[in-house]
Amino acid sequence: MIYFDNSASTNYKPPAVINAVVNALTFLSANPGRGGHSMAVKAGRLVQAARETAAAFLGQADPGRVIFTDNCTGALNLAILGAGQKGGHVVTTALEHNSVLRPLHALKARGLITLTVVEPNGGGVVDADMIKRALTPRTYMVATNHVSNVTGAAAPIEEIGRLLKDTDILYLVDGAQSVGYVPVDIAAQHIDLLAVAPHKGLHAPQGVGMLLASRRAGLNPIRFGGTGTASHEPTQPRALPEGLETGTLPTPAIAGLNSAVHWAKRHFHQNETHILELSYRLLNELKNLPFVTVYTPPGHYNGIVSVNVGDLSSESVSDILSEEYDICTRAGLHCAPLVHRHYKTENRGMVRISLGCDNTFEQVEFLLKAIREIGS
Amino acid sequence: MIYFDNSASTNYKPPAVINAVVNALTFLSANPGRGGHSMAVKAGRLVQAARETAAAFLGQADPGRVIFTDNCTGALNLAILGAGQKGGHVVTTALEHNSVLRPLHALKARGLITLTVVEPNGGGVVDADMIKRALTPRTYMVATNHVSNVTGAAAPIEEIGRLLKDTDILYLVDGAQSVGYVPVDIAAQHIDLLAVAPHKGLHAPQGVGMLLASRRAGLNPIRFGGTGTASHEPTQPRALPEGLETGTLPTPAIAGLNSAVHWAKRHFHQNETHILELSYRLLNELKNLPFVTVYTPPGHYNGIVSVNVGDLSSESVSDILSEEYDICTRAGLHCAPLVHRHYKTENRGMVRISLGCDNTFEQVEFLLKAIREIGS
Repeated sequence: MIYFDNSASTNYKPPAVINAVVNALTFLSANPGRGGHSMAVKAGRLVQAARETAAAFLGQADPGRVIFTDNCTGALNLAILGAGQKGGHVVTTALEHNSVLRPLHALKARGLITLTVVEPNGGGVVDADMIKRALTPRTYMVATNHVSNVTGAAAPIEEIGRLLKDTDILYLVDGAQSVGYVPVDIAAQHIDLLAVAPHKGLHAPQGVGMLLASRRAGLNPIRFGGTGTASHEPTQPRALPEGLETGTLPTPAIAGLNSAVHWAKRHFHQNETHILELSYRLLNELKNLPFVTVYTPPGHYNGIVSVNVGDLSSESVSDILSEEYDICTRAGLHCAPLVHRHYKTENRGMVRISLGCDNTFEQVEFLLKAIREIGS
Repeated sequence: MIYFDNSASTNYKPPAVINAVVNALTFLSANPGRGGHSMAVKAGRLVQAARETAAAFLGQADPGRVIFTDNCTGALNLAILGAGQKGGHVVTTALEHNSVLRPLHALKARGLITLTVVEPNGGGVVDADMIKRALTPRTYMVATNHVSNVTGAAAPIEEIGRLLKDTDILYLVDGAQSVGYVPVDIAAQHIDLLAVAPHKGLHAPQGVGMLLASRRAGLNPIRFGGTGTASHEPTQPRALPEGLETGTLPTPAIAGLNSAVHWAKRHFHQNETHILELSYRLLNELKNLPFVTVYTPPGHYNGIVSVNVGDLSSESVSDILSEEYDICTRAGLHCAPLVHRHYKTENRGMVRISLGCDNTFEQVEFLLKAIREIGS
């Protein structure tokens, strides 16, 4: 079986990550931050270590502003619903995932915000100038992904960050497809809110997400409950991170995440180069096949290559790849509907090939052979 | 080390549970419900199996109404915020955890609901008649726990369920401290919404919660994003369970949960009897010590025994137990402030001793010896 669906979830989990999960399950089953006994304290220290590891890796000065959620969608909901400013205006792009579009739409539907959706330029890439032109005096947030989960197009996040850093506008970056693959540094790139999907580029277990919030990003809780602190108060405590992390944390997944960030940091350049080279090979070969439509912009070698073959539906191609070649890719809309309006692929979707650090050149050649056979 | 903090999180995780997590991390890293390739389908089948296992264990007819969340607090927030009826009235009790009180308070603070908090009777137990008297024509929900996380007092949930089953009022049961310990059956007990903390009595990993919803419980989503379905819609799909399960599920924890429910079912009577016997011994011995105040109501042998010793603060006693005897208990308010108003323990809190199936009579005797030494 060849796995090319790493943008949904990476297949490879390093042994150290699995060991960290097993270790937490075996020796650290206490509830971190609940109780002062030795085992709860040990579990709490592990969670704190994971915050510090993630903060250091992503240029976040204050580990207390690394907020653990259940997944990246949880992080994006917290950022969007938690920073919601009544009557304000938000700018986003047509390349966004539903985890950004749907919470924004929910705020808009309740009459709480107005929304501008910026289209990518002719090359399929978000343009900082177009973001700039969409800003109004009421804009309080700009939300873009770093790398599109559909086409692999990278947004100029540093340029957008610079544009916003001296304004009151918060910059929310959906890092689901970039963290672990390409350099992300919230201080250097002037990001206010960074949402992370650790089970993707960091090779952590599914079951934990992260929101990193800069000091200028104030967030209201969107869920309420026990925090192990200020228990006498009927309102949710304001202190970070616990005020935004209600209920028992996913300690085993956080233990895995801590290990995964160490692993991802150690292998960063090796993985980045490998995926760039695989993407380069795949993208440039596919571009030359007359029966293949390539949607990934030239030069965007971010591990995601999206195509259609002949006039087949994306589902047909993915099904043939799975059933006849044992190759896992993903078909359809990829939870990002406006991209498909842009490319007029609302009906057929796209076949997304998403690469991981454990994929090989041989696998890429085998996929190319399969696509040639399907298309000819 | 002796672990008596099982109500925060059970210490014992069966080997089969750990194996299931490792298996999911090693072989099932695809994203369940995302993509039609073989590995995503396999991951999806595992998630479906876990729904069916949990539904069968808890008397839920429709596995599609087993909704996975990150933890029990997530399940309670979904139930309370998702069923929120503008202008309606909710009845709850002073024995509730902040994971029930705080979301209700948030709705009340926004002027969306009115709230009646019923005190327990003189014996520290919720009384169905007192719930009945609190109902008004505007009441749309009654929310009680099954077993108090502070005192171990059990509420008469079957009686309350019967009271409500032919009305329009939904019955939400916080099963955090009961599921796995005592029989829970949402059909037989007329529960509309059951919130579960699998990492407690089911011995599952931390990182997954469950909300089981009866057919008459309609819920609105409280978060928004990708569901792998109806991707072209800007609004959250209504279909259950995926409409309420946005983002990537915690597959490893769900795999562990599936295994844990099988284990808990197989060992149910053995564990129930063992914990009852340990509770009986502990409660009846402590009751006879003149310097110990016992808060657990007589006859409520549910694995939780809460006390104070002499005029020491609960923190002092827990600290001495941890440092001098290597016994883990929990001090303080246990995220349930109104219980302490009832018992006038707002300042000193209580020492909670919470038992697990792996605790032994020898450990209970050692704890009794320690408390005798501290109190004398």
